[in-house]
Amino acid sequence: MDKIKPYERTAYYYETDQMGIVHHSNYIRWMEETRIDFLEKAGYPYDEMEKDGFLIPVLSVSCKYRVSVKFNETVIIKAKIDEFNGFKMKISYEIINKESGELRATGESTHCFLTKELKPVRAAKGTRVFDVFNNVLGQDIYE
Amino acid sequence: MDKIKPYERTAYYYETDQMGIVHHSNYIRWMEETRIDFLEKAGYPYDEMEKDGFLIPVLSVSCKYRVSVKFNETVIIKAKIDEFNGFKMKISYEIINKESGELRATGESTHCFLTKELKPVRAAKGTRVFDVFNNVLGQDIYE
Amino acid sequence: MDKIKPYERTAYYYETDQMGIVHHSNYIRWMEETRIDFLEKAGYPYDEMEKDGFLIPVLSVSCKYRVSVKFNETVIIKAKIDEFNGFKMKISYEIINKESGELRATGESTHCFLTKELKPVRAAKGTRVFDVFNNVLGQDIYE
Amino acid sequence: MDKIKPYERTAYYYETDQMGIVHHSNYIRWMEETRIDFLEKAGYPYDEMEKDGFLIPVLSVSCKYRVSVKFNETVIIKAKIDEFNGFKMKISYEIINKESGELRATGESTHCFLTKELKPVRAAKGTRVFDVFNNVLGQDIYE
Repeated sequence: MDKIKPYERTAYYYETDQMGIVHHSNYIRWMEETRIDFLEKAGYPYDEMEKDGFLIPVLSVSCKYRVSVKFNETVIIKAKIDEFNGFKMKISYEIINKESGELRATGESTHCFLTKELKPVRAAKGTRVFDVFNNVLGQDIYE
Repeated sequence: MDKIKPYERTAYYYETDQMGIVHHSNYIRWMEETRIDFLEKAGYPYDEMEKDGFLIPVLSVSCKYRVSVKFNETVIIKAKIDEFNGFKMKISYEIINKESGELRATGESTHCFLTKELKPVRAAKGTRVFDVFNNVLGQDIYE
Repeated sequence: MDKIKPYERTAYYYETDQMGIVHHSNYIRWMEETRIDFLEKAGYPYDEMEKDGFLIPVLSVSCKYRVSVKFNETVIIKAKIDEFNGFKMKISYEIINKESGELRATGESTHCFLTKELKPVRAAKGTRVFDVFNNVLGQDIYE
Repeated sequence: MDKIKPYERTAYYYETDQMGIVHHSNYIRWMEETRIDFLEKAGYPYDEMEKDGFLIPVLSVSCKYRVSVKFNETVIIKAKIDEFNGFKMKISYEIINKESGELRATGESTHCFLTKELKPVRAAKGTRVFDVFNNVLGQDIYE
């Protein structure tokens, strides 16, 4: 796969809280946006994957907050497929201030694969689902 | 139907924004919570209604903000079925500070009825859906 | 002011609900995003306006839903300053499917102006706040 | 401190996503609600603590999802102060189906203490902030 642009996101007003910073729960949502953006840029949009019968629920999620993101601040978010074997997957994230390059937060999520009937399923070798993740396993995928 | 208690809700921290007040979009969500609470208290929980094959999508929504709700403030929310004919329904809301009784906001929502296949349907006389709304049409339903 | 590009937004996964469509409360948030995008493109970013001492709280909001927006659907949102006199402002919105041009929803919001101490204030002639809204009053501002 | 009731919460419609389950990001918000509920029940409401000059930002958060929570499902959430030394604090959570007692998810959050000016501060022995957390350190606080 060619190198792609990292996901870019500007913090919305309604994502702030009365501490004057983006509420920490939103970073978890940004990580989801980043996964979906990755699939889009990798040529396998999430809705196509759903049509192919695969859901990728979240088994666990974590985030470490270093410096608060403020309203209207633009961050870039980089994901990396740390582990993938067709059954399970682990993804790590870096949330970075676009202008300064300063790290704002890091995160991780783990996933399994389910059919539309919510039954566990293996993404088999040779399927698009398998390839899209396996092809970038452990790699820096960003320009 | 016996008089019921109005819906009660305390504002969450993550519902605030950097203006130090509950973000206006959350009032729209509270109105939905109030509808679902009404159905529960009227003896016809929303998930039962969904199992009976009825969805009640929102056709329009509006809210007028008088005094901002603050974090940890408890409001009571009263709904009133203003119009209902089996096809469409109009509900109005009052969001009131619990302690002082002061009005915080008023709102309205309009709805139609859909089948699970998202086709318009009429809630016919004699059905539970019809009764639950028609029985309280235009009435003050609260203790 | 030169014509600007309408605000563009792709619906996130977490914005959907179990009806399989974007939850109606999110349209209210998109309207806020559109206001802030307008200010940015008009050369007067929201945080600059806040630094100049102006807050623009929402007095009322409404939305009419025509066709549900789905996950990953891209919409463009056009705002129009319908009324503005320095004290109050009324803005209308059109949410449009980007690909087909089909209207998804329309909305309105009304606003006043407050100081940082949350006291009502008039945006006086000659101030940046006055100009940014007055210059586009009633106009189609989009390319 | 007397034993308290665990935090109880019914999942809202708008918290679901198109997979038909509560979106995973909301569990992070429920953990915050649980912290604030604990402070309330411990006799030291969050806003009083803020008035005393203490903010408790989130340094990290994690959640492991076992069984999805569905719309209208009621869960009870138990928190436990695992670590506390006046500078930092670690809290763990159990999210449990109210009816069956079945575990839905577990989580953790870590926190520090800040002044209103967002400077790190130690909650000193003898202060209310110190006592409220130290008194229940490592304990099962629920009835």
